[in-house]
Amino acid sequence: MAERQVIAVLGTGTIGASWASLFLAMGQDVRAWDPAPGAAERLQAALAQAAPSLAAHAGAGRLSLHPSPEEAATGAGFVQENAPERLELKRALYALIEPVLGPEVVIATSTSGIMPSALQEGMAHPERLVVGHPFNPPHLVPLVEVVPGRQTSEAAVAAAMAFYRAMGKEPIRLNREVIGHVANRLQGAVLREIVHLAKEGVASVADLDRAMSLGPGQRWAFMGQAKLFALAGGPQMMAHFLDHLGPAVETWWADLGAPELDDEARRLLSEAYPPVSEAEFRAVQDWRDAALLRRLAALEED
Amino acid sequence: MAERQVIAVLGTGTIGASWASLFLAMGQDVRAWDPAPGAAERLQAALAQAAPSLAAHAGAGRLSLHPSPEEAATGAGFVQENAPERLELKRALYALIEPVLGPEVVIATSTSGIMPSALQEGMAHPERLVVGHPFNPPHLVPLVEVVPGRQTSEAAVAAAMAFYRAMGKEPIRLNREVIGHVANRLQGAVLREIVHLAKEGVASVADLDRAMSLGPGQRWAFMGQAKLFALAGGPQMMAHFLDHLGPAVETWWADLGAPELDDEARRLLSEAYPPVSEAEFRAVQDWRDAALLRRLAALEED
Repeated sequence: MAERQVIAVLGTGTIGASWASLFLAMGQDVRAWDPAPGAAERLQAALAQAAPSLAAHAGAGRLSLHPSPEEAATGAGFVQENAPERLELKRALYALIEPVLGPEVVIATSTSGIMPSALQEGMAHPERLVVGHPFNPPHLVPLVEVVPGRQTSEAAVAAAMAFYRAMGKEPIRLNREVIGHVANRLQGAVLREIVHLAKEGVASVADLDRAMSLGPGQRWAFMGQAKLFALAGGPQMMAHFLDHLGPAVETWWADLGAPELDDEARRLLSEAYPPVSEAEFRAVQDWRDAALLRRLAALEED
Repeated sequence: MAERQVIAVLGTGTIGASWASLFLAMGQDVRAWDPAPGAAERLQAALAQAAPSLAAHAGAGRLSLHPSPEEAATGAGFVQENAPERLELKRALYALIEPVLGPEVVIATSTSGIMPSALQEGMAHPERLVVGHPFNPPHLVPLVEVVPGRQTSEAAVAAAMAFYRAMGKEPIRLNREVIGHVANRLQGAVLREIVHLAKEGVASVADLDRAMSLGPGQRWAFMGQAKLFALAGGPQMMAHFLDHLGPAVETWWADLGAPELDDEARRLLSEAYPPVSEAEFRAVQDWRDAALLRRLAALEED
């Protein structure tokens, strides 16, 4: 069990509420703030929904809701910020909370699209700002991308890594900021080749999706592509793989596409997955979430 | 249970033996040929190893081994060819077996790297040749890529699709041949961005692998990337996703790398996965196979 401390969760939409449910289950006290009308009710509903999948954790932190970010941040040992993806809004939030935080307290932002170097400009203690980007939903998926900005201190990165590990996550440290961090870039790389093959008429978007999940996707849930290829090389691992299949990899790379997300691409993608009714959407969403839970259960057994 | 017929399996290395174990478990009679010394013993060992994971299938086809490809092909209703990846060798094999096959019998090749249009040149019945490329190991992973060459008939494609479905597989039909088919290109696309990010110093190859499998990989085992993004769009599906996150996708695409597999790339990859002892390799291989079986069990439940 992680040492009990106070975590400020700023913004309790989908991501913030999921973080809060995890921190509480791990025995942390959570001080939450979200200015949106109805936020408290939605947070309680999200906590109730997350509870069954977190039942294995014995922790039971205390939750309190606060009318201002500076009140929520008071006494916090770690801040997880999940405000909307707007640079000025996040900067204004940091300006409000920094005066009540000790200088050593880390502010981690869940941002997927804003560079930490931009966020930390003008902060009193820019060295405390890191990206702590989860993969949705944070209370279930292990990955957290920890990304320093130009002014971030080594101590803040180390503290964030330790914190997420204590929360049962598998944080990955990026050495420097890059658009999309890492996981979204890999998603983008796969989508780009799907779009390329669909535009070239090789197969439909839906069939390409099926080829992905029913083939390589089976392994991607427990091993990255470089390690999978290394294991295909036998005990000599990657060196043997590169000697024997490096030329094949080079022919694939040379032939991969770099399509635009133009009208044709949008049409192919949208026709593959057209609008559905609320009920149909809920059904496939439930199916997706159940399927994810089965993969996470398998991951626990690995 | 699929109708019982005779399947010729030509070449019983890793892929051919796995195909044979599947066909037998699905109640097909298999006539096998492989000229390598010790091939019969290795095939029996592979069948014994595959048996536990195929126990759910009640079928029990008969296996016979034959001293020549033409004898193995005699009476076959479908041919699965798994000879070494050499154009002339495969062409010579087809020349030997075509005289004993009815003109309607499909020859499916497991090739990953040779274009079917090249293979079918000079055949008596080029229209019967299709790629039936499995994902290793074929007896477990659902995906089979069915790819026509320029001269392949629609009937041959349809027959191959029906055959693999009857064998419990999930065949995907490509409309035309392309280097690497589809699944290997997607693997190549992911590896390329891993190599790019490692070369740029963003993270280590091993950490990038972990980010992949512990984040997006959890979902890739049950859904392709386009559908995952569509579901992120709510009931309006892909159209809504593109409206709201299309610009983000475009920024990722614009920033994805196209590295060479040069000395630096090879060094980064090889240092991440250096040679290991036979015992260590066997341990991680066993772990990988057990992890794959857990994902396939989860897939059955989806």
